[in-house]
Amino acid sequence: MDRPVLPLLGSPRAARADAVRNRRQLLATAREMLAEQGVARLTMDALAERAGLGKGTVYRRFGTRAGIFQALIEDDEHAFQERVLSGPPPLGPGAPALDRLIAYGRARAAFLIEHREIVRAAIDGRRPVPAGTEMRLSQMHIRMLLTQIPLDGADLDILAVQLTAALEAPLLLYLSAADFTDDALHTQERTARGWQDLVQRVCRRP
Amino acid sequence: MDRPVLPLLGSPRAARADAVRNRRQLLATAREMLAEQGVARLTMDALAERAGLGKGTVYRRFGTRAGIFQALIEDDEHAFQERVLSGPPPLGPGAPALDRLIAYGRARAAFLIEHREIVRAAIDGRRPVPAGTEMRLSQMHIRMLLTQIPLDGADLDILAVQLTAALEAPLLLYLSAADFTDDALHTQERTARGWQDLVQRVCRRP
Repeated sequence: MDRPVLPLLGSPRAARADAVRNRRQLLATAREMLAEQGVARLTMDALAERAGLGKGTVYRRFGTRAGIFQALIEDDEHAFQERVLSGPPPLGPGAPALDRLIAYGRARAAFLIEHREIVRAAIDGRRPVPAGTEMRLSQMHIRMLLTQIPLDGADLDILAVQLTAALEAPLLLYLSAADFTDDALHTQERTARGWQDLVQRVCRRP
Repeated sequence: MDRPVLPLLGSPRAARADAVRNRRQLLATAREMLAEQGVARLTMDALAERAGLGKGTVYRRFGTRAGIFQALIEDDEHAFQERVLSGPPPLGPGAPALDRLIAYGRARAAFLIEHREIVRAAIDGRRPVPAGTEMRLSQMHIRMLLTQIPLDGADLDILAVQLTAALEAPLLLYLSAADFTDDALHTQERTARGWQDLVQRVCRRP
């Protein structure tokens, strides 16, 4: 008798749990479609059909087709951050800071190049900008590592912004190019080597 | 008798000369309005009225209000490039390359901060992107200076991209911030010092 009526109509918590389940199911389905058919075939309608959900649900969840890819890359960013925060060294904790800095740039280049098709679909014609959430996470991580390196008198806030931009710029230029050429691995390797050279120069004792 | 009819109707060349004159007049008027009334009062309609031209002419010339500010900043970028290419040293030719590199970053920071209101109005809610024309000019200039500095085995293409991004990133972050705080000169000075520190570290002999 005291039982509130609302839960019968679906409590907010139940609705949220539903939404989380829907999202997870949609992303899992999207990944299957990506693996089988590639980026071009993954549309809002195709995803709704394959997931056995209404189109309205897919539109509510992602807004636009680009939104699907943004959700996918966001999921993968979380996994990447996990590796940085608690994975094995030198990317994870336990290696000297300069080695971790070099490993971070190499891993970041690999991550963005491996996800190039998804990143481009998530950007969807807009040019990538250097001020997204992931950029801020990169910057915080780089700044934290810089505090562990003797850098007589450097302004670490500015240096972290500079190095983050220096790491991402060659990759953003590649990702925003009109056409992918087939030299993705070359760009990745050249960026990683350029990053290692830059941080070694910056951190070199005078 | 042999005189063609077309010029009576206005030749393409005459039309082009008219367009150039209109543009120059509109930009001069826009600058007067900026000086007297600030950025907020400079609208398409106000500009047309003050210039004594039809609104249609202003819309055709600039497309949107942001287009006025893009044209203004483009004009000023040309003047800036002139100073870099043929002005007095150390920004212009005649100083050692590292001094010119340091001077370039300091001048670029000053330019963007001095133009912050116009740059923001030109961006108009869109976030600034690191791949515009000016960015490419910066990159070419920085790369040219790097060739004159002994940088044992560095990949100069990548290094020029890295350094250009490192120079612009703190300024872009400032320019894209929701609100200007009153610390524009502080940002300018800190960016200029951060840039000097970065290039001195990068160019230091091992």
